Amino acid sequence: MSKLRVAVLGARGRIGSEAVRAVEAADDMELVAALGRGDKLETLVENDTQVVVELTHPASVMGNLDYCVRHGIHAVVGTTGWTEDRLAQLRTSLAAAPQAGVLIAPNFSIGAVLTMRFAQQAARFFESVEVVELHHPNKADAPSGTATRTAQLIAEARAQAGCAPQPDATATALDGARGADVDGVPVHSVRLRGLLAHQEVLLGGEGETLTIRHDSLHHSSFMPGILLGVRRVVSTPGLTVGLENFLDLG
Amino acid sequence: MSKLRVAVLGARGRIGSEAVRAVEAADDMELVAALGRGDKLETLVENDTQVVVELTHPASVMGNLDYCVRHGIHAVVGTTGWTEDRLAQLRTSLAAAPQAGVLIAPNFSIGAVLTMRFAQQAARFFESVEVVELHHPNKADAPSGTATRTAQLIAEARAQAGCAPQPDATATALDGARGADVDGVPVHSVRLRGLLAHQEVLLGGEGETLTIRHDSLHHSSFMPGILLGVRRVVSTPGLTVGLENFLDLG
Amino acid sequence: MSKLRVAVLGARGRIGSEAVRAVEAADDMELVAALGRGDKLETLVENDTQVVVELTHPASVMGNLDYCVRHGIHAVVGTTGWTEDRLAQLRTSLAAAPQAGVLIAPNFSIGAVLTMRFAQQAARFFESVEVVELHHPNKADAPSGTATRTAQLIAEARAQAGCAPQPDATATALDGARGADVDGVPVHSVRLRGLLAHQEVLLGGEGETLTIRHDSLHHSSFMPGILLGVRRVVSTPGLTVGLENFLDLG
Amino acid sequence: MSKLRVAVLGARGRIGSEAVRAVEAADDMELVAALGRGDKLETLVENDTQVVVELTHPASVMGNLDYCVRHGIHAVVGTTGWTEDRLAQLRTSLAAAPQAGVLIAPNFSIGAVLTMRFAQQAARFFESVEVVELHHPNKADAPSGTATRTAQLIAEARAQAGCAPQPDATATALDGARGADVDGVPVHSVRLRGLLAHQEVLLGGEGETLTIRHDSLHHSSFMPGILLGVRRVVSTPGLTVGLENFLDLG
Repeated sequence: MSKLRVAVLGARGRIGSEAVRAVEAADDMELVAALGRGDKLETLVENDTQVVVELTHPASVMGNLDYCVRHGIHAVVGTTGWTEDRLAQLRTSLAAAPQAGVLIAPNFSIGAVLTMRFAQQAARFFESVEVVELHHPNKADAPSGTATRTAQLIAEARAQAGCAPQPDATATALDGARGADVDGVPVHSVRLRGLLAHQEVLLGGEGETLTIRHDSLHHSSFMPGILLGVRRVVSTPGLTVGLENFLDLG
Repeated sequence: MSKLRVAVLGARGRIGSEAVRAVEAADDMELVAALGRGDKLETLVENDTQVVVELTHPASVMGNLDYCVRHGIHAVVGTTGWTEDRLAQLRTSLAAAPQAGVLIAPNFSIGAVLTMRFAQQAARFFESVEVVELHHPNKADAPSGTATRTAQLIAEARAQAGCAPQPDATATALDGARGADVDGVPVHSVRLRGLLAHQEVLLGGEGETLTIRHDSLHHSSFMPGILLGVRRVVSTPGLTVGLENFLDLG
Repeated sequence: MSKLRVAVLGARGRIGSEAVRAVEAADDMELVAALGRGDKLETLVENDTQVVVELTHPASVMGNLDYCVRHGIHAVVGTTGWTEDRLAQLRTSLAAAPQAGVLIAPNFSIGAVLTMRFAQQAARFFESVEVVELHHPNKADAPSGTATRTAQLIAEARAQAGCAPQPDATATALDGARGADVDGVPVHSVRLRGLLAHQEVLLGGEGETLTIRHDSLHHSSFMPGILLGVRRVVSTPGLTVGLENFLDLG
Repeated sequence: MSKLRVAVLGARGRIGSEAVRAVEAADDMELVAALGRGDKLETLVENDTQVVVELTHPASVMGNLDYCVRHGIHAVVGTTGWTEDRLAQLRTSLAAAPQAGVLIAPNFSIGAVLTMRFAQQAARFFESVEVVELHHPNKADAPSGTATRTAQLIAEARAQAGCAPQPDATATALDGARGADVDGVPVHSVRLRGLLAHQEVLLGGEGETLTIRHDSLHHSSFMPGILLGVRRVVSTPGLTVGLENFLDLG
């Protein structure tokens, strides 16, 4: 079987350089280009690139994807900053290149994506759901974006299923004890030296609890998701948003 | 909306009496009969029973279900002892009563069912998977039936996805340190006073881990699953094996 | 060896009836009286009681202990409502009966007492400490009294050791995300159907974390601590406050 | 206050170079020498070294310590390979230099040391105790040395307290399910990609469990223990084995 011809854009960044190594280490891929700031996109066509891993910057991602789509190169995109406008613009480009596939994923950690998905699926079966996220103490925001997103997905799933509000008899509380309220789901943020990025979804019903916990110990955790994206995007024309769409979760 | 007319068979057993209370407490159900050993099945028809919750004994379940199916009464079955022969016999009865629905579930704990399902779905995305189950020290078997079943489902999912064997560089080990081998998945059994029934599925990949934990604290945890089965079986003709089929997990 | 002659006061209450069973089941004890409301204290002397387990009510505990101390009967006390005044009054009684011993303990769960003690001992070695307590959703106060007490002990230990304030770069936070502030120690309260009473102390330093977790699943967890108190109070004259003093923790 | 004058031996090794950075970053210390293979010990005296951090090799540690003790330089030693003979030889040197202090510690992680200590203290109060250790899958031995040591300390504490054997009704078991038996304490070894070094001690009694968990995420976790050793060894003449002796745990 011939190998997938893969290029990395943003190859000298922290995640980009990790992606270069991951592509090189994958048996079914060949790294054909590793471009950084100032390198020419023409290299991609010259090297018959099939898939680009786009890990650059909001300022350059639109131009890079425009080039890729026009030349029939698929793309797996980790760069952030997506608005409805930008997505619409990308969809227009793709309409003119029906074979090209683009995957945009806000999170390439398969563990994080599965945690959100499972939380969403389980949420309607339990009376109570809370989220505890734990990070290193240098983090500036609380709760984390992932925890907020997870709580929102849980709240949506419960609303759709017509779940009752969560039981809570708290009558006397210290300020903050019951966490932040994200659409009715309490979210608690722990900041502890020695930790990296961790999240726990606790679900409780009569006589039982279910806990889904994700521990992220290194940004190398994004690589399996990026490689999976590369393998799947070549047979998925058009725009796909979210790695969960490639996980065949039914 | 008219209430579902529900009867419990085996109503004086430990789980049965709990089911009686759960049906009585459900807003959308009416308990129309609670039968124990020696009570007549005719009561079911006399009371216009729509759904039976069958929590008796392998020796009586076939007769009870035969009566229900012949009279168009749906059934949710927690009694164990199902063989291929018995299932075939039940399917034959059901073929002659195309409206009747029967749900047989080896486990009515929604948390346990979701744990198995999520483990199965996640298994192929991680290099390593192990199961730790923890129970009270009066338990006679190790691993638990649920843990063995979970490990088998994990192993099947990995085989289907063509996963490589799990990495393990262990060269020197004390007997038993690495757990029991269930189809290539290590399973560890902890027995601790104070515990009831708990299970953890640990999945690990490059830079991240995902943990799915189920804590069962009381057999009342079976009730939400039984009630959900009652609500769904009335619109699901034929035989359904496994509560997961009613959880709309996609 | 002759058995300890033990009586239970408040023997018809929830904890009291459990204590009756526990004393009966202990090889080294004999239950010589089980008194409830209205029963006469004289029974204690008539039955040569050596130790009383006092599980009554703030309104009766002072009278009961006065009787015991005057008659040289030791006491293990679970009844609450102790003020400085009451303790002073009890110390005065004891001064006149130099052989009698009284143990008052706010918590007889050995696991809870050890959790507090270990948290207190470990607190000064880590940059970060937070407390997460998890209870059933019918609980009226948040945080739990045990969690608040644990956080206070942690704060005292850190103040004594001259620890710096905990690192926390949070700049943008939803209200409540970072928990309640108890003397500088964040405390988070989770309320989840299916849970009973659980507490986690998380300590984090450079490159490592230490977690101490207590799970309380039944009020029978108080019995080992009560029995240990009975065995030790007979050789510990005077007033002892706190079960930790009988745990020989150094 | 004048700063402690500290030198690192083995300064170019993985842990040694980390120790150099840690000493430099400590407000109350001054790094006066950082010696590697081939560098002369005389540098220590020339720079008025007060404390040496010895992180070299079993082949050189005895010579290095002999030099230090003879010149009244205190030492904190992480190098392994200590036998009874070697300890006796070191004690003899120290007898002739009554002011010099030497701390030898098999583990400088404060979290690991506290975990062992707390497990040892708690072990006699619970009917059941098991150890679960979890490491990356490249580890060659199972159980880990720390887990084996922890189980031995637990077993010793239980033997001294006259505890009964652990309850375990297991009648039918798969090979290995109940873990390795270390002096009567079951030890379970999990090997999972994404993990580093983790250990859990589970203690269970009537109605409650206590869990002590240590997560080691980076070898920088040794630094706080090494610095604490440096600060304390200067006022602790003679030989001290084990960091726990400097933790004032009572």
